[in-house]
Amino acid sequence: MDISITKGLGMISKSLIAEFETLLGKENVLSDETDRQSYSFDAAVLEFVTPALVVFPTNTEQLGQIVKKCYDEGLQITVRGAGSNLSGGTIPDSENTVVIATGKLNKILEINEEDLYAVVEPGVVTAQFASQVAAKGLFYPPDPGSQTISTLGGNIAENAGGLRGLKYGVTKDYVLGLEFYDFEGELVKSGARTVKCVTGYNLAGMMIGSEGTLGVISKAILKLIPPPKASKAMMAVFDDVQKASEAVAGIIAAHVLPCTLEFLDHATINYVEEDKKIGLPKDADALLLIEVDGHLGQVADEAVIVEKVLKECGATDIHVAQNEEEKAKIWAGRRNALPALARLRPTTVLEDATVPRSKIPAMVKALNEIAKKYNVQMGTFGHAGDGNLHPTILCDRRDHEEFVRVEAAVDEIFNVALALNGTLSGEHGIGTAKAKWMEKETSRGTIMFSRRLRKALDPKGLFNTQKMVGI
Amino acid sequence: MDISITKGLGMISKSLIAEFETLLGKENVLSDETDRQSYSFDAAVLEFVTPALVVFPTNTEQLGQIVKKCYDEGLQITVRGAGSNLSGGTIPDSENTVVIATGKLNKILEINEEDLYAVVEPGVVTAQFASQVAAKGLFYPPDPGSQTISTLGGNIAENAGGLRGLKYGVTKDYVLGLEFYDFEGELVKSGARTVKCVTGYNLAGMMIGSEGTLGVISKAILKLIPPPKASKAMMAVFDDVQKASEAVAGIIAAHVLPCTLEFLDHATINYVEEDKKIGLPKDADALLLIEVDGHLGQVADEAVIVEKVLKECGATDIHVAQNEEEKAKIWAGRRNALPALARLRPTTVLEDATVPRSKIPAMVKALNEIAKKYNVQMGTFGHAGDGNLHPTILCDRRDHEEFVRVEAAVDEIFNVALALNGTLSGEHGIGTAKAKWMEKETSRGTIMFSRRLRKALDPKGLFNTQKMVGI
Repeated sequence: MDISITKGLGMISKSLIAEFETLLGKENVLSDETDRQSYSFDAAVLEFVTPALVVFPTNTEQLGQIVKKCYDEGLQITVRGAGSNLSGGTIPDSENTVVIATGKLNKILEINEEDLYAVVEPGVVTAQFASQVAAKGLFYPPDPGSQTISTLGGNIAENAGGLRGLKYGVTKDYVLGLEFYDFEGELVKSGARTVKCVTGYNLAGMMIGSEGTLGVISKAILKLIPPPKASKAMMAVFDDVQKASEAVAGIIAAHVLPCTLEFLDHATINYVEEDKKIGLPKDADALLLIEVDGHLGQVADEAVIVEKVLKECGATDIHVAQNEEEKAKIWAGRRNALPALARLRPTTVLEDATVPRSKIPAMVKALNEIAKKYNVQMGTFGHAGDGNLHPTILCDRRDHEEFVRVEAAVDEIFNVALALNGTLSGEHGIGTAKAKWMEKETSRGTIMFSRRLRKALDPKGLFNTQKMVGI
Repeated sequence: MDISITKGLGMISKSLIAEFETLLGKENVLSDETDRQSYSFDAAVLEFVTPALVVFPTNTEQLGQIVKKCYDEGLQITVRGAGSNLSGGTIPDSENTVVIATGKLNKILEINEEDLYAVVEPGVVTAQFASQVAAKGLFYPPDPGSQTISTLGGNIAENAGGLRGLKYGVTKDYVLGLEFYDFEGELVKSGARTVKCVTGYNLAGMMIGSEGTLGVISKAILKLIPPPKASKAMMAVFDDVQKASEAVAGIIAAHVLPCTLEFLDHATINYVEEDKKIGLPKDADALLLIEVDGHLGQVADEAVIVEKVLKECGATDIHVAQNEEEKAKIWAGRRNALPALARLRPTTVLEDATVPRSKIPAMVKALNEIAKKYNVQMGTFGHAGDGNLHPTILCDRRDHEEFVRVEAAVDEIFNVALALNGTLSGEHGIGTAKAKWMEKETSRGTIMFSRRLRKALDPKGLFNTQKMVGI
């Protein structure tokens, strides 16, 4: 036996490494520990785990061969796009894990302008794809916060959301079809190049948000739409966070679905302003950043309705962007929210508990009480329009006493969200970070059913083993 | 043993019938053969199978108890809404089948105007639901042809489409969450009352279109949207079917997504006109019926673009509805298409092979050639805008020689649709009617994967056993 004794190289033998090198080329296999360490974490606050090997397939046939080889050899598989995951979905399960990095499966195979769809490999970067689609005069709406680095495969595996969820939906709403490899390396196809397809089980739907636990995605057919013809952005200032959150509910109740309807609380406004000096009103208790889009006449009408609701709800100032530059300035505040918060302390715990939109006022109130009760530093911003806020706790994980308080606060955030008919996770996924809370939202039956499903589709338990519901 | 000897009463004992009667009340259990025969068929052209028993749960707890009892006793289960299924999904598998009729699970539990969702039981009738939603000033877009009788549970189990698929999507696009019973009668929950939810597997997505083979749906959370503010309908006459189908592609290419874009061929126009005398142009080779909706200004602009494309593509006449009465008249032609065709011969084979929209001209050409080649009487109408045509063959199933030609024609329709990058079934489902063609569209791996999935979630193989991929 030539079991390698390199530290942390798990169960991978040198001869097996050589086999992967023969299959993929030496340049597409990372076995050095320092190289592998770069694949030991993602964007979630969790323990690092260094994988046994990192491989880069350069075509989808290789992807299937890798899956088969890993399964035959009993090696765990974690597929990784950009590693921008926020719930631990791309952290290897153990030192016996092979990370399949999709960065070289990055071809846009087709953008069909007549039939409004695209076919892509999983490693295509989200924003690059959206920009290529835009260049053809079409629109791919899903825009997760990490879009400049995240991959479409990762977006699908996590059912990524974003700022436009309210009006345009999430990644799930744009997947017409998928191809993926099952544990035996067999190719499975589901869906079509058409809006309507009911041939067989909705396996594409099942794979969306499955966090790499049921198979390995090799190709996606994505729905595109004609872009909106116009848009208008505005910023509303509130001296009371409750008034702002009531305005959110009021806009939806007036039957306007803005393409984005974002919220920044007092703490976030001030951290952004201190960091970036972009002219945000530091004495505001909350800001709403709103953009309506669509037909020119619709945009004009909806902007009027939104302004009316904002005034009725007590906005102290409303600034409507008059040109692209002013619009960019409005969105700069939102874009800088997370970076500004993350800079404050060593550890950023970014949550995404989500509630029905009308419950936003109650949720915001509860978040402020929780921050006080547990004495944690919290800034809240996010997609108020679809009830998906991001309460963000800034702390130092190494400070045990503080982190115990942080975890208690997070636990209470989840309890409140569920009590308000909401959900644990709007768009970040369960991964390992939230697995222990899943039963509280669903049922014992749901966990058992999910495990049965998983066991059938991953009989050796090798696909991202620790994630979501366990084996 | 008191195994009943009533003809066709399968394996159900009298004592078991008594147990169902105790559980549900005598009035909710049908065991007489004449009663049971009414549940032996659906709207597909397939052999009738009389079930052993028909039961009507009146609340969802009873539904779970029925599932558990059937599973314990090894009785097959077919869930039935209105029986309007077009691929055999509601035909019992054998004389050992218990039909669970959802007609008395018909409560709309909530229509939430603030948060734009509704919670319903599975037996709610689609059109009645849409109308209650409309009465609250909101909009539930899915509108399958059978909507006046079909149930929401049936729509979900089949992922029903309809006329508005092109712009508004299908049933799948409006299911935020589901509750269902697994084979042990355990309640499984997936999804939430929010647009964003990634807590656990997308089991709701997996259940949509699963044709009653993975569990029994007990509750659904459905997404609602604000209704369009205006709409405009028009009818365009063509002297050449190819020009009409090119106009369909042209409208989409001009980035207009009509809410409906329907097609009637020469045969269908004439059968409807002979039947109903509504003033359709009998010498037309094809008609397009188009409705655009949305903001008032958008509707006006889009109507102008559509008219321009229609003229460029050679429409010989364009009639724009000036009022609701004229609009109703335009849609009467479409609504009467299937009834008029179905009246002609004893057997109506209604297909729904679907192609990417730009392939409509090629598909229409092929359909005409196929009708000639196999000498079958065919009328074609349908949702041209999303590539989902309904070639409808009129025949007499009892005429063996003719039916062999019909089946050969259907086989070729499927081959052509797949060759054009389309799908076997846009909205009618696989059931038993199309099971044998599934592998041709997908792959051997897909069939094996689907069976593995099914086996895990229905270990005794009792849920709608014969449907889709077999056990």
